[in-house]
Amino acid sequence: MNADAKKTALRMIPYGIYVLTSADGQGNIAAATVNWVTQTAFAPPLVVVGIKADAGSYGTVKSAGVFALNMLGKDQKDLAFTFFRPADVQDGKLSGQSFRAGSTGCPILAEAPAAVECRVRQIVAEGDHHIVIGEVVDAHVMKPPFGRPDAAILEMKDLGATVFYGG
Amino acid sequence: MNADAKKTALRMIPYGIYVLTSADGQGNIAAATVNWVTQTAFAPPLVVVGIKADAGSYGTVKSAGVFALNMLGKDQKDLAFTFFRPADVQDGKLSGQSFRAGSTGCPILAEAPAAVECRVRQIVAEGDHHIVIGEVVDAHVMKPPFGRPDAAILEMKDLGATVFYGG
Repeated sequence: MNADAKKTALRMIPYGIYVLTSADGQGNIAAATVNWVTQTAFAPPLVVVGIKADAGSYGTVKSAGVFALNMLGKDQKDLAFTFFRPADVQDGKLSGQSFRAGSTGCPILAEAPAAVECRVRQIVAEGDHHIVIGEVVDAHVMKPPFGRPDAAILEMKDLGATVFYGG
Repeated sequence: MNADAKKTALRMIPYGIYVLTSADGQGNIAAATVNWVTQTAFAPPLVVVGIKADAGSYGTVKSAGVFALNMLGKDQKDLAFTFFRPADVQDGKLSGQSFRAGSTGCPILAEAPAAVECRVRQIVAEGDHHIVIGEVVDAHVMKPPFGRPDAAILEMKDLGATVFYGG
């Protein structure tokens, strides 16, 4: 396999930007920017997320059995970069961001335009990132998008000419 | 869960458009437009595709154990709609499109800007679409993109104001 062709072809896959959050009910709260996300079924509504197997957020999702995907809006590049860094909770804020606990206990960011909450159905431990399969059990729209919803989300390509996660 | 919120939030996930192909070496060739695709690991390079469990293409992928994702370019809306319909092979063309067999035997469309070929690692039979996990074993770039690769792919939102597959 030609490594350059593999990189270029895989980098053609477009991605939205999400803040993945989780909370295990024992004080462990995780939050990390992710982009490897797709829906995979309508009934039940399933999503798949590729999460780095040695990341702290992966451990929290695995033990909590729940996670949320907070969609970011076109103008929230700063939030994407905030959650590239390790998250902390201080003065009731998550890395400086207001949040509330959703029905699964996962943090829902007040500033995110929308979020889905998921129960982990299965984790497929294949590769350096594992495949987390979640069933969407709750959903929130804080800021209804004008026009197509998929035109309102922050995308990988909006982060800058040199920012990639894929290939 | 609020059904409208679920639909809106899930429709924020942006998707590229791909022609999924497969061939089982016994004369069965499948081709279908899909969009539920994400990479999930770098090492080995893994991708996940959600494929409708009662679709003909699903059966072929399952029995063949291999599939290709042919990326479509921004200007190839017609090809997306061509492969929404059942595919046929006539006069050596796949629904009228020139192709060659890749190293896995899967059809690689001559007009696609790029394609990856995958071996099925696992199929997770959850939901009305199943989760097909493939390892990328070959990759082809027929038309190198100018600038970001993810700016060159045809996206769901390019198909028209009322075309969605997600929610």
